[in-house]
Amino acid sequence: MSKRLVIALGGNALGNTPQEQLALVRETARTIVDLVEEGYDVVIGHGNGPQVGMVNLAFEFAAGNGGGTPAMPFPECGAMTQGYIGYHLQQALQREMSHRGISRGCASVITQVVVDRADEAFSHPTKPVGMFYSREEAGRISAATGYTMVEDAGRGYRRVVPSPIPQKIVELPVVEQLLREHSIVITVGGGGIPVVESEAGGYEGVAAVIDKDRASARLALDLGADMLVILTAVDQVMINYRQPDERAISRMSVAEARQWAAEGHFAPGSMLPKVESCISFVENSRDGVALITSLSKAREALLGHTGTIVTR
Amino acid sequence: MSKRLVIALGGNALGNTPQEQLALVRETARTIVDLVEEGYDVVIGHGNGPQVGMVNLAFEFAAGNGGGTPAMPFPECGAMTQGYIGYHLQQALQREMSHRGISRGCASVITQVVVDRADEAFSHPTKPVGMFYSREEAGRISAATGYTMVEDAGRGYRRVVPSPIPQKIVELPVVEQLLREHSIVITVGGGGIPVVESEAGGYEGVAAVIDKDRASARLALDLGADMLVILTAVDQVMINYRQPDERAISRMSVAEARQWAAEGHFAPGSMLPKVESCISFVENSRDGVALITSLSKAREALLGHTGTIVTR
Repeated sequence: MSKRLVIALGGNALGNTPQEQLALVRETARTIVDLVEEGYDVVIGHGNGPQVGMVNLAFEFAAGNGGGTPAMPFPECGAMTQGYIGYHLQQALQREMSHRGISRGCASVITQVVVDRADEAFSHPTKPVGMFYSREEAGRISAATGYTMVEDAGRGYRRVVPSPIPQKIVELPVVEQLLREHSIVITVGGGGIPVVESEAGGYEGVAAVIDKDRASARLALDLGADMLVILTAVDQVMINYRQPDERAISRMSVAEARQWAAEGHFAPGSMLPKVESCISFVENSRDGVALITSLSKAREALLGHTGTIVTR
Repeated sequence: MSKRLVIALGGNALGNTPQEQLALVRETARTIVDLVEEGYDVVIGHGNGPQVGMVNLAFEFAAGNGGGTPAMPFPECGAMTQGYIGYHLQQALQREMSHRGISRGCASVITQVVVDRADEAFSHPTKPVGMFYSREEAGRISAATGYTMVEDAGRGYRRVVPSPIPQKIVELPVVEQLLREHSIVITVGGGGIPVVESEAGGYEGVAAVIDKDRASARLALDLGADMLVILTAVDQVMINYRQPDERAISRMSVAEARQWAAEGHFAPGSMLPKVESCISFVENSRDGVALITSLSKAREALLGHTGTIVTR
């Protein structure tokens, strides 16, 4: 059986407009097809922060200013970004494989991820989404909709949504079926469309943002992946980051990672959730390892020349 | 091997707002799971006319009125609707299967459909999309973008895009892999994201709308389906429709269908493309048949009690 890689792709691999995204995914595709050529079966999770913000904004603006289109709930905006990003990614991957004479299936699967209604994140929403409003407008919106509105970065008030822990990937069986056939699968886009168990049975969407690294770690565990690869803006994890004794880490155990995290070496909302996702995968998988590196160094890192490996 | 059904779902099964769609897909899911219970493997193609119009409008309005979001090209709008509609459909199907104790995979696959740059539809765009403009605005837009703008229904000027013939389904191998595992696959949404062969290799999006019945017929042929089922607003195909000698057709051969089409019994843009899609499938498949009926009568029609069957 081929080795399985789950790649978590950062939003910096995508860009802010359709034209930017179309250009950036070509580079991303080259790296990913490099990994396919190294003999791996590849599954890709990706972020959607700027993109879901864009979709949400366009609909919110049009609905609120006489555009004649309906308001679009947050989970549906997430579903739209899975289509939008997945389309560009798969097209770029197909093109790159065609150039190299590789024949594999490749497709994006619209993916729901179950979260727990009782997750404490629902009492403390933290992720800002959508438009900026004045204090008065924010008060009106909050009264009318129940949204939590908070002051954001001195630019006005915005809606915040919770960021709960991913519990289960609804479309996992489908991803597994495609992976067995060595297709490249794009899934859990934006961390997945967040759903909760519905009282009527089945699932229903909920306004939330699931961290894409956590969702990719969940996916890697459930697929029995050999490696979780988190691609980000830096080649290696640093301790004492931006200090005179700054040091790049080539390899760290779960115990070391946990200690450095406790010592505050990793920034919350940035490197910390990535390191935590790696710990959660490595600790719970049979013999999987995790790798944090940059998109441009991914192949070198897989060959052991750079990057940060997290092991038991 | 289970029999394979390709279902082409009309836009009337979806609705105009996210709330309407969420309610309507539940009924659609009951019918589709009925067919699964009859022992079929099911693939679903669906329309996206009102939905792609909505996405296109929201982005066009926000970009043109200071919303701060970028303009969104037409193929990307189509990709978004595949995510949006696919999410609701698969959630409803999963819920319905869970109620009935059926365990099958189910997912939407983002799907590109190749059209020919030389298709004569590109010289005669016919499908209106997006906002209405005044004659002057339309002239300015046309000069700036090269869009074809035409007067539509006395309400102003709109952009029109071509409706070319589907040639090839890019993600067919992935759909085939899932179908072999008896998963329910939602694909060619809105007729598929229209792409053409790119000079740089691979494919690139093109502003066009592919007829969803034609795309579903292409899909049914390529999958070797046993039956193409086109679900529409009427239970059966009629000849002499709305005349004193109106007659419902239970069964027609390709030759009869072709003759009635030539005699003008089927409305262009409505029943005619459905009948033509059935003819194209039946004529080119080994021993497939096609069925035209309504969503609510689909199970009865499959049992031979209503609907219109098209055979060799």
